[in-house]
Amino acid sequence: MNSISKYKEITSKYISSLKIEKTPNELYDPIKYILSLGGKQLRPVLTLFTAEIFGTEYQKALYAATAIELFHNFSLIHDDIMDDAPLRRGHKTVHEKWNINTGILSGDAMLILAYQYFENYEPTIFKELAQLFSKTALEVCEGQQMDINFETRTDVSVSEYIKMIEFKTAVLVGAALQMGAIVAETSDVNKKAIYDFGLNLGIAFQLQDDYLDAFGDIATFGKQIGGDILENKKTYLYLLALQNANTNERLSLEDWFSSTENNSQNKIDEVKSIFEKTNATLATQKQIEDYTNKALAILENLEISAEHKNELRIFALDLMNRSV
Amino acid sequence: MNSISKYKEITSKYISSLKIEKTPNELYDPIKYILSLGGKQLRPVLTLFTAEIFGTEYQKALYAATAIELFHNFSLIHDDIMDDAPLRRGHKTVHEKWNINTGILSGDAMLILAYQYFENYEPTIFKELAQLFSKTALEVCEGQQMDINFETRTDVSVSEYIKMIEFKTAVLVGAALQMGAIVAETSDVNKKAIYDFGLNLGIAFQLQDDYLDAFGDIATFGKQIGGDILENKKTYLYLLALQNANTNERLSLEDWFSSTENNSQNKIDEVKSIFEKTNATLATQKQIEDYTNKALAILENLEISAEHKNELRIFALDLMNRSV
Repeated sequence: MNSISKYKEITSKYISSLKIEKTPNELYDPIKYILSLGGKQLRPVLTLFTAEIFGTEYQKALYAATAIELFHNFSLIHDDIMDDAPLRRGHKTVHEKWNINTGILSGDAMLILAYQYFENYEPTIFKELAQLFSKTALEVCEGQQMDINFETRTDVSVSEYIKMIEFKTAVLVGAALQMGAIVAETSDVNKKAIYDFGLNLGIAFQLQDDYLDAFGDIATFGKQIGGDILENKKTYLYLLALQNANTNERLSLEDWFSSTENNSQNKIDEVKSIFEKTNATLATQKQIEDYTNKALAILENLEISAEHKNELRIFALDLMNRSV
Repeated sequence: MNSISKYKEITSKYISSLKIEKTPNELYDPIKYILSLGGKQLRPVLTLFTAEIFGTEYQKALYAATAIELFHNFSLIHDDIMDDAPLRRGHKTVHEKWNINTGILSGDAMLILAYQYFENYEPTIFKELAQLFSKTALEVCEGQQMDINFETRTDVSVSEYIKMIEFKTAVLVGAALQMGAIVAETSDVNKKAIYDFGLNLGIAFQLQDDYLDAFGDIATFGKQIGGDILENKKTYLYLLALQNANTNERLSLEDWFSSTENNSQNKIDEVKSIFEKTNATLATQKQIEDYTNKALAILENLEISAEHKNELRIFALDLMNRSV
């Protein structure tokens, strides 16, 4: 989509031009490092996009967009420590390149820096942005904690899982969109609707992540297909399958997921076949569609031109038809 | 001092009455735990104190005071992970009682919660508080990073050390005092003067910490005398001694500080005697006095009653004459 790719270029240029000329270097180098790795930068793009849709120049939203991207990267640094992840965007994670203490402290500094970007707005807008930001950031922490809890729990329900991805991922998509609306000083109706649009789209996006990990096309997905299955990750597919399974299917699924053998195509094939037999695959696709449709229905409430509604619709459909 | 002890009681009551009724418990229990351990709560007391001095009811400053105390405790949780500290306020540290991941994530949540307490103020005051808070928080991170760097550096200068304690400790004392002034909406002259007063007092306070660790009275200090020496900590005394030492003294000091034997009264005695011989002890006492006097001189600039000035003077002198 044309306008989205325009904002992508602007965002990426702006973020790589940020001058974080502060010392000590040991604190700020890891921040510059993770920003230099780029990434999708989906969230700041959304902020610029909605700022213009709601009638202001995207330039006014650059600070808010930067704050969102800094927050996202702060959460990656700390999450990567917690997950003991060696790689991020194809490069060493911060705590691998330096050490855990550096990851903790640079992450903290990055979270604070994010708040500082809002200081470029006058008090009323500053407060509205910071308030949304704090609420969202706290929810992201809560989502991360739920995710950690789920690892050792055997009784996670499908609705708890949806709540977890809502907090861990979707609220930040909603907030990114709403920040553009706040900067543009649009109506409360618009602010609420664009947030809800993002929330539903964010859930659909995350469910699709689960789906593609098992059923994506290796040629376009870029990662190994079945990675979640090999890691015994309790994805939406897994929880649905477990919920729908008959006794044999359940025992078989639990058996596969108790194995730590993590390099077997056989395991992937067998688990995927249980996902299919229990209807988890179809039901997940249906959920992705439902959340996307819910997002699209909310667009009707927006007090913007038909043309802009259409841009948001195309954006949502593109996101849902992605194969990566 | 009477009014200070009044605020101490109010602060401690208010903070222990905070209802943090949020879930998941795994995220919020560590926050409640560290707050339940109490501590000196010096910083929030200062915020209430200055709010009244600058002409408003202390009640109006309770939210800002809470934010400051939450931030201080957030920094303790993360610092304790970095320092691998087993105990805090006589109890297990958060990462010891739970684990490192819990310490990281609960700390993050606590930092965000701190920002949320400012939301109780109207936009202009909110922005002024949050801006001071972010600047200060970032400096505390920078101070912590300098401290980490100093551990492995052998060429730390006395002035670099002062910069480190200024950032790691003193700026938060200045900010705590200034927040009361901001809430009271006093003049810019007062806001600046009270910050500078706190900054100088904070440096004096930290230097005194170094001094008391080596030369305090075991009966009143409460900790083992000489702990810093046994841990080879590069305190102000050590750096001054090294700077002033002749070749023999320098070699002897470096020799003692390369030993990891950490239970020797002999080491403590010998190092203290070098501190004396090199005049580091006297020079440290002089510095504490100088920074205190600098703080007291700044009081003259304050646009407040003589009585209030006197209260601040007594507070400063009490702090400097403490033996704990």
